[in-house]
Amino acid sequence: VLTLITFLSDFGARGPYVAACEAVLISLAPAARVLHVGHEVAPGDIREASLVLAQVTPLAPPAVHLAVVDPGVGGPRHAVAVHAERGDFLVGPDNGLLMEAADALGGARAAWSLDPRRVRTQAALEPASLSSTFHGRDLFAPAAALLSRSIPAGTMGEPYEETALVRLPAPLLESLPSGGIRAEVVEIDRFGNVALAGRMRQTAPVEGAAVWIEGEQDPAWQARRVATYGDLEPGELGLLEDSWGRPSLCLNGASAAELLGVRTGVTVVLEPDLS
Amino acid sequence: VLTLITFLSDFGARGPYVAACEAVLISLAPAARVLHVGHEVAPGDIREASLVLAQVTPLAPPAVHLAVVDPGVGGPRHAVAVHAERGDFLVGPDNGLLMEAADALGGARAAWSLDPRRVRTQAALEPASLSSTFHGRDLFAPAAALLSRSIPAGTMGEPYEETALVRLPAPLLESLPSGGIRAEVVEIDRFGNVALAGRMRQTAPVEGAAVWIEGEQDPAWQARRVATYGDLEPGELGLLEDSWGRPSLCLNGASAAELLGVRTGVTVVLEPDLS
Amino acid sequence: VLTLITFLSDFGARGPYVAACEAVLISLAPAARVLHVGHEVAPGDIREASLVLAQVTPLAPPAVHLAVVDPGVGGPRHAVAVHAERGDFLVGPDNGLLMEAADALGGARAAWSLDPRRVRTQAALEPASLSSTFHGRDLFAPAAALLSRSIPAGTMGEPYEETALVRLPAPLLESLPSGGIRAEVVEIDRFGNVALAGRMRQTAPVEGAAVWIEGEQDPAWQARRVATYGDLEPGELGLLEDSWGRPSLCLNGASAAELLGVRTGVTVVLEPDLS
Repeated sequence: VLTLITFLSDFGARGPYVAACEAVLISLAPAARVLHVGHEVAPGDIREASLVLAQVTPLAPPAVHLAVVDPGVGGPRHAVAVHAERGDFLVGPDNGLLMEAADALGGARAAWSLDPRRVRTQAALEPASLSSTFHGRDLFAPAAALLSRSIPAGTMGEPYEETALVRLPAPLLESLPSGGIRAEVVEIDRFGNVALAGRMRQTAPVEGAAVWIEGEQDPAWQARRVATYGDLEPGELGLLEDSWGRPSLCLNGASAAELLGVRTGVTVVLEPDLS
Repeated sequence: VLTLITFLSDFGARGPYVAACEAVLISLAPAARVLHVGHEVAPGDIREASLVLAQVTPLAPPAVHLAVVDPGVGGPRHAVAVHAERGDFLVGPDNGLLMEAADALGGARAAWSLDPRRVRTQAALEPASLSSTFHGRDLFAPAAALLSRSIPAGTMGEPYEETALVRLPAPLLESLPSGGIRAEVVEIDRFGNVALAGRMRQTAPVEGAAVWIEGEQDPAWQARRVATYGDLEPGELGLLEDSWGRPSLCLNGASAAELLGVRTGVTVVLEPDLS
Repeated sequence: VLTLITFLSDFGARGPYVAACEAVLISLAPAARVLHVGHEVAPGDIREASLVLAQVTPLAPPAVHLAVVDPGVGGPRHAVAVHAERGDFLVGPDNGLLMEAADALGGARAAWSLDPRRVRTQAALEPASLSSTFHGRDLFAPAAALLSRSIPAGTMGEPYEETALVRLPAPLLESLPSGGIRAEVVEIDRFGNVALAGRMRQTAPVEGAAVWIEGEQDPAWQARRVATYGDLEPGELGLLEDSWGRPSLCLNGASAAELLGVRTGVTVVLEPDLS
């Protein structure tokens, strides 16, 4: 039994969507505990949500992970439940949102395409009353609640080839002959830290780096390799291994993203600083 | 026993107000579960909060619903507990906030005017120490906690005529001879969908519509009737039945509210599109 | 046993940080309940967070209070657990964040400096894998979870002199010969209410006040002493005792902070209004 249900969406804190889904979860799985992974990713941003889901889910005990960032709601995309090797279920649209987390949980062991009528019948909800724009409430939350009660996924849909599950393309990451990297900005946090694709220990310059923002005319920035923010002087750009193992550009008490003028998806080049 | 307490306010996520109320709930009703309906409605916006409350409460199991959007706090407005036909209690200021939800829960079966001294005495709190500006913490949360423990409302105040409870005026909705409607914008969500008053199946043009924003000089927009966002071309305005049954104007992956330049409360005219 | 864990940070609702910590709490203390005090204080604003923590914690039952606003993460600042006289534990960086709450809970009875390796060993986590930038997840949440399970603080670190714990300077508050006060703005809430340092009953003018913003050329404002917002005319500035006992400048349904052009930390002078 998976008594924990985690819940991620792009619904935002204002409006009824998040609470509507949680109300459905509580109605159908009264014994479940709900952990809100977050609902403030950019609207429709599957990539941002996918990363957050993959960061948080391995830290929780095995759970049902409800994830709804679903710009294709009501269209031909499949609704799926994915059983991960660790024992978790991931429930959401098959649009790439789920697989980075599935990988972080040991990979997909099995998957099902959810049939709205069967899910709703199992949940004792009116089978036909499925909206075409809010499957979080009408399909995914009911399915997540049932799975947390150990109702078999096979009662809610047909098996689905794991290899057919949609995956997002990996973020850009390229090693340069100089020992540097070309890498995509994969996350900018509330503090303005700029996380790049890759693992610091494998890919990035060990010492300081010259930093280019691809497509910008500006000359390179210099980043000093440090262990933490407090090692930096005011206004000095730093390069550190962040808490997820990634190369990260930062300032001490200010926003590196603002200084560099970068956003998620931009390409950054780090060259070993030989000066 | 109602072990679920839902909680809606306009307190915002920053500052101590939300957590102060939840701390009081947990202190006085340790066995209760708390579901946050939301705290980000516009400050003092009773109408916005009323709608969210009415949307979410029927999806939850019977519960005590604590709702605090209370611009008249400390003044002559009554504090009330409303017992709904479904078995729920609604607790909050009698300013119109509660009745749309009461209706959604089968109507008001009974009501009480809450006496702060009696509520606080029942809760073993200092009867006299009631602030004049934070009744969420000092009056409503204690009352909600007591009600969830099945302490009778009659111990906290006097019966109150259900017919005296304040109701918000219904949003503007008018059928036009052409088969179209004049309707108020009742909700704009995070995705920029523009929901209108009324029920799509009863009131709105079945096929596409010409759309006027009342008071604007701009010519009409054309909206195509669709089932969901993905049916629309980029930039094409759509008209669909939203997940609450309302006529809704939308774009695919962009904000219809921004395109149309509308806000909640604005009047929109939909005329059947005979072109 | 302290089955409640409260959690305050500056991590924000977007991104993985809050949920990562909560996932750790749930993993290590499955029986604990988590109350989110808030995560939207300004990034790195220890003073704002300290006040919120001190406002909320006394309203909750005795608990473990996890608080992470930690601009010095990975540097020489200590990580501490503080045992308050009421029975609560406060867990976080020793940078001033915790002590206002400790005082509100009866004062510090004992304290420990947390040793990351010992905390992680106790929690059955890899002792060496401590990030240098996310001690919320890697150190503080594990320690809070263990304390809620009644694992002694002494197993996670060495005793720490209570007198050595870092305290924030008290906000500016000065009585004037006129009977007025010079006081710092200590909080501006979502409604634009401007709370000043001090206790209304002890320090502030009893009747109306002339209000100066120190450093501004503008002439004084007149504030009328009222009990609550509804006593004010539209646009009229009011002075009231707020729900935490402080002098507060306010408007009815509008933002006094905007009218006055003030921010937290600004000095305001209230002179008795003898006109």
